[in-house]
Amino acid sequence: MKVLVVGANGQIGKHLVSLVQDNDSLEAKAMIRKQEQASFFENLGAETVMADLEGEVETIAKAAEGVDAIVFTAGSGPHTGSDKTLMVDLDGAVKTIEAAKVAGVKRFIMISSFDTRREAIQAAPSSFAPYVVAKHYADDWLRRTNLDYTIIHPGALTNDKGTGEVNAAEEVERGQVPREDVASVIVASLENDSTIGKEFQVVAGTKPVNEAIKSL
Amino acid sequence: MKVLVVGANGQIGKHLVSLVQDNDSLEAKAMIRKQEQASFFENLGAETVMADLEGEVETIAKAAEGVDAIVFTAGSGPHTGSDKTLMVDLDGAVKTIEAAKVAGVKRFIMISSFDTRREAIQAAPSSFAPYVVAKHYADDWLRRTNLDYTIIHPGALTNDKGTGEVNAAEEVERGQVPREDVASVIVASLENDSTIGKEFQVVAGTKPVNEAIKSL
Repeated sequence: MKVLVVGANGQIGKHLVSLVQDNDSLEAKAMIRKQEQASFFENLGAETVMADLEGEVETIAKAAEGVDAIVFTAGSGPHTGSDKTLMVDLDGAVKTIEAAKVAGVKRFIMISSFDTRREAIQAAPSSFAPYVVAKHYADDWLRRTNLDYTIIHPGALTNDKGTGEVNAAEEVERGQVPREDVASVIVASLENDSTIGKEFQVVAGTKPVNEAIKSL
Repeated sequence: MKVLVVGANGQIGKHLVSLVQDNDSLEAKAMIRKQEQASFFENLGAETVMADLEGEVETIAKAAEGVDAIVFTAGSGPHTGSDKTLMVDLDGAVKTIEAAKVAGVKRFIMISSFDTRREAIQAAPSSFAPYVVAKHYADDWLRRTNLDYTIIHPGALTNDKGTGEVNAAEEVERGQVPREDVASVIVASLENDSTIGKEFQVVAGTKPVNEAIKSL
């Protein structure tokens, strides 16, 4: 299965491309914004393709040609303003969803935020709420498609080394989770079609990733 | 017909409440954020109600109790950041739409931006694009409801005195339009149920407002 990783150059993205390349039944196509980002992925033996989430749907659709699944793990990051939250986390996500339709790619995995429900927007601190709004509408857009989607809602991301063990369910207690383990959860979701049409929260836990995902 | 004006204290909002109060078959309920904003509307004989677009849907729904129509003409304004664009222009609009459903108010008039289509997002200068994104998704949300909606797409707003004459159609050439004339267009839309389920662009022109709206 060939997987377009949107946001490949991000922290989860890099773990993900690495895990995908280590997996015999998967191969990655890393979508990147700048040519200088390519070498990291080429060293992993992964294909790369240049496309900008602020560009046209058609450009992203072209990047998605020939893949079997798309993983959206892009994020405008904490150092940009809310303008980029609107352009990347909301509109870039929706354009990627539309590109999946154009390219005829049915399988779509969205890396969302821990809780993107209406109540979570209202409860969020004012500095975080705009991001939750963006993710709320991106998730909503995906749910209304006919794509074979999975929406993953990770807890607070850390750079700790992955443990390979998580706690995943429709609702779990808020907590942290290493980015490396989120990448493992994405791979397990790609390998388990039982996750199609589902969404779940995931934090650090005690169940091996594959078991946790199978039992969702 | 009683009309909840959301964004009453804005520049179009003030013109609108004034025109509504001058109209024998209409009365305004001005939704405001601060008590000190009330006197302007009380002097026009209009009812006021306090509610914040960043608050709960239920608060806005309570403000909408007993009205027959809602006009959304709020905007975060050019002096705030994109965080407010997300919270007010997008999420505040959607919450108002949801509040209309909760309160059982079928008639909904949205003051949008001149062009909120995908192509317009891509074509917009980077400083304006995030605003277009917010309006794009708010308009989209409204179209997917069962409300009796009208979406008005005004050209570049000016503070010129209204002429009472406009050019309105599904697509018109880009141009300016006085805020006072936009307020007249809103009143004419409230008075003409033929605008239900429609959206149109409006700029300064040569047709009397009521005639322009009737012939849409």
